[in-house]
Amino acid sequence: MVLNRYARGMKRSTPDTPAPGRSTSADTAEPPADEVGLAAMAEEARVAQRELAASSGALRSRLLEAMATALENDSEKILLSNRRDLDGSEALTVAQRDRLTLDAARVEAMAASVREVGRQRDVVGEVVDGWVLANGLRVRRVRVPLGVVGVIYENRPNVTSDASALALYSGNAILLRGSSQAFHSNKAIVESLRSAISEVGLPDGLVGLATETSREGALAFMQLNAAMDVLIPRGGPELIAAVRSHASVPTIIDGDGNCHVYVDESADLEMAVDIIKNAKTQRPGVCNAMETLLIHADVAEPLLCLLDRELTAVELRGDERTRQLCERALVATEDDYAREFLDLILAVRVVDSLAEAIDHIRRFSSGHSEAIITESFANAQIFEREVDAACVLVNASTRFVDGGQLGMGAEIGISTQKLHARGPMGIEQLTTTKIVIEGEGQVRH
Amino acid sequence: MVLNRYARGMKRSTPDTPAPGRSTSADTAEPPADEVGLAAMAEEARVAQRELAASSGALRSRLLEAMATALENDSEKILLSNRRDLDGSEALTVAQRDRLTLDAARVEAMAASVREVGRQRDVVGEVVDGWVLANGLRVRRVRVPLGVVGVIYENRPNVTSDASALALYSGNAILLRGSSQAFHSNKAIVESLRSAISEVGLPDGLVGLATETSREGALAFMQLNAAMDVLIPRGGPELIAAVRSHASVPTIIDGDGNCHVYVDESADLEMAVDIIKNAKTQRPGVCNAMETLLIHADVAEPLLCLLDRELTAVELRGDERTRQLCERALVATEDDYAREFLDLILAVRVVDSLAEAIDHIRRFSSGHSEAIITESFANAQIFEREVDAACVLVNASTRFVDGGQLGMGAEIGISTQKLHARGPMGIEQLTTTKIVIEGEGQVRH
Repeated sequence: MVLNRYARGMKRSTPDTPAPGRSTSADTAEPPADEVGLAAMAEEARVAQRELAASSGALRSRLLEAMATALENDSEKILLSNRRDLDGSEALTVAQRDRLTLDAARVEAMAASVREVGRQRDVVGEVVDGWVLANGLRVRRVRVPLGVVGVIYENRPNVTSDASALALYSGNAILLRGSSQAFHSNKAIVESLRSAISEVGLPDGLVGLATETSREGALAFMQLNAAMDVLIPRGGPELIAAVRSHASVPTIIDGDGNCHVYVDESADLEMAVDIIKNAKTQRPGVCNAMETLLIHADVAEPLLCLLDRELTAVELRGDERTRQLCERALVATEDDYAREFLDLILAVRVVDSLAEAIDHIRRFSSGHSEAIITESFANAQIFEREVDAACVLVNASTRFVDGGQLGMGAEIGISTQKLHARGPMGIEQLTTTKIVIEGEGQVRH
Repeated sequence: MVLNRYARGMKRSTPDTPAPGRSTSADTAEPPADEVGLAAMAEEARVAQRELAASSGALRSRLLEAMATALENDSEKILLSNRRDLDGSEALTVAQRDRLTLDAARVEAMAASVREVGRQRDVVGEVVDGWVLANGLRVRRVRVPLGVVGVIYENRPNVTSDASALALYSGNAILLRGSSQAFHSNKAIVESLRSAISEVGLPDGLVGLATETSREGALAFMQLNAAMDVLIPRGGPELIAAVRSHASVPTIIDGDGNCHVYVDESADLEMAVDIIKNAKTQRPGVCNAMETLLIHADVAEPLLCLLDRELTAVELRGDERTRQLCERALVATEDDYAREFLDLILAVRVVDSLAEAIDHIRRFSSGHSEAIITESFANAQIFEREVDAACVLVNASTRFVDGGQLGMGAEIGISTQKLHARGPMGIEQLTTTKIVIEGEGQVRH
């Protein structure tokens, strides 16, 4: 494994606690860590990216295959580093600890994801559109990498390999900034990925990991202006809020999912129950899970009766009408309608019309995914048109809003913003376009 | 002409100096101006936009036709208001005063631009792509308006009508914030446009003009977060810098154009002279004019000899090799290579290779438009691929980089950023997409 200046500096940043994998790169003439700051790492990524941008899709596929194999081969080393992170993780909640924990199967899954990205179609150089002008100039819009992509995230070490795979396959360099709790895991994963990059003959500066995991380090990372073309945060509301307030690099926000399902008066109630159950309980802790159920008054009684039986594990919090029809429902406050529970809790409200449902969604939606259950063609059209969200669903579970599920390939997140990317962000969303104009000496008159 | 709460508030903001057009809307029961701030204007735009988003393309075409006719009919009123602005414009430079000045022909041109936008293809509702999943879910990405577009600009009153036309035709509401020097002109134009909006039965809150033209007003405008979906600055480096530092609304930056032309060793020198002359002198004060000429050493002598004769009106500033070959060239400093002259001044540098030219461009480019003159297929390919700019040209003048010239329709600016829009920004760039997913009760397993 060949480590460059940055990676060596990275090792130096924890000099008294040698990493388990250290012996593989015993280089003793390392410069002090202070000399190799974020700026140097970013500059290295910028230069490395130019080489990658000019590479063939075949080489990038080979690169991802090599990255997957390296993760498999380095599994033990990665697990040892992960153990070290876990040993220092007493302060974490059970859920946080679970997200941090790796085992052989999880590392294998990480490798499989990387491999899968490398089998997607190549988007670099794709001609988006093109035309010939009356004066003979030939114009085309060509898809090109964004350049240097930054990702700031929390405790999931799999983001390290997933995000690197997507960034590199779309021709970008990537700068990573994970949490301090996951530092050793991330370091081991990055070292593994970098060994694969060197193996295929590309500069390993293509993947950089920030070693400064303090809050100041995070702020400096968000403000790497000239060095970073886009910053993508992956994490909870606190991280997102910090990025919104402090990032000066352009960002794509993977925001909250306060997702609604509206059951129209014309709905097939059995279908409604199936979708509600799936959207709420299949995996309650994720952004595309449903948080609020809106029910048309005409079907509130039979539907709540069915849900009372079918959603026994779910705590219901409803408005007055809901509570009249369903005894076990607790009181829903305004705050409950605004919240992403990420838990087996469902806010419920009875509405008198589609318009009232849409108004409620307008007020509380986070712009992620909103669904209607209806047999009415007209109401489906109105809902599709008037609800302003990344994804609008008719008669389907919100849980489908995921790059893989929608056939859009692996994703680096789900954008809830309107600029650049909206919805699942995959390799295509990690590119921009360049206009190429070819002529034979044309001048403007 | 029906004016709503905001427009009435707008009139109130200059109570002691009645506007020339005032008599047309003598409403005496106006609420005080303080009640109708930016937030209220933005909220009105948000609500109005929902109605526009649901409108047909035919109605939006009719709207733009009505807006064009209104500008023509109100030409005298607009010119009177413009006179009032000009009377108070002693502090402006000649160029600034020229940009502010309207005459009958210019108002006519504004109307013609609006009319032309309304004849473009409709992009709202366009299906960008779509597919069917194995489980039967039907997925499509649909083009939808961004929502509320903000434009902050300087002394050109034509931006008021141009930007409004593009925003409204693509289904957006628009909030405008022009300079205090152009306030009366902008107000008259907005009143004219709003009368047309009411005429076709749409809410005139679709176009809002900020009345507070102080620096604080500008900052407040850049920070209308929840109310504005995107902010587009149109103006000089100072305005752009202010937006970069202070805007918290997502922005699309219409940046500088430090454009280069590189003359390769294989270039047809006559073609090179034509393109250089056109790119530098046809309209030197605009962003797509050329600022620096890079010449391969092998053709430096004959080319500089030709340019010496052909570019008599242009001041040349060169490196040492340039000055040895062309006596009249002054010294070019590093700063000259970094600058956008916007004048009949050209920085020149002799380079030894295509690679050196690309390095120079990497260092100094503002990412706008870069051109190569070459007869070499290989060098054209390398230049197209390796130069990172919104537009890359081969054997054509940089002056073609303009939405209209490139057949992309009228533009609200030329983006030099990579996220969302890159290059000319027309109606398509004022939209985002929404993913619509339709099923028959599918749930995720």
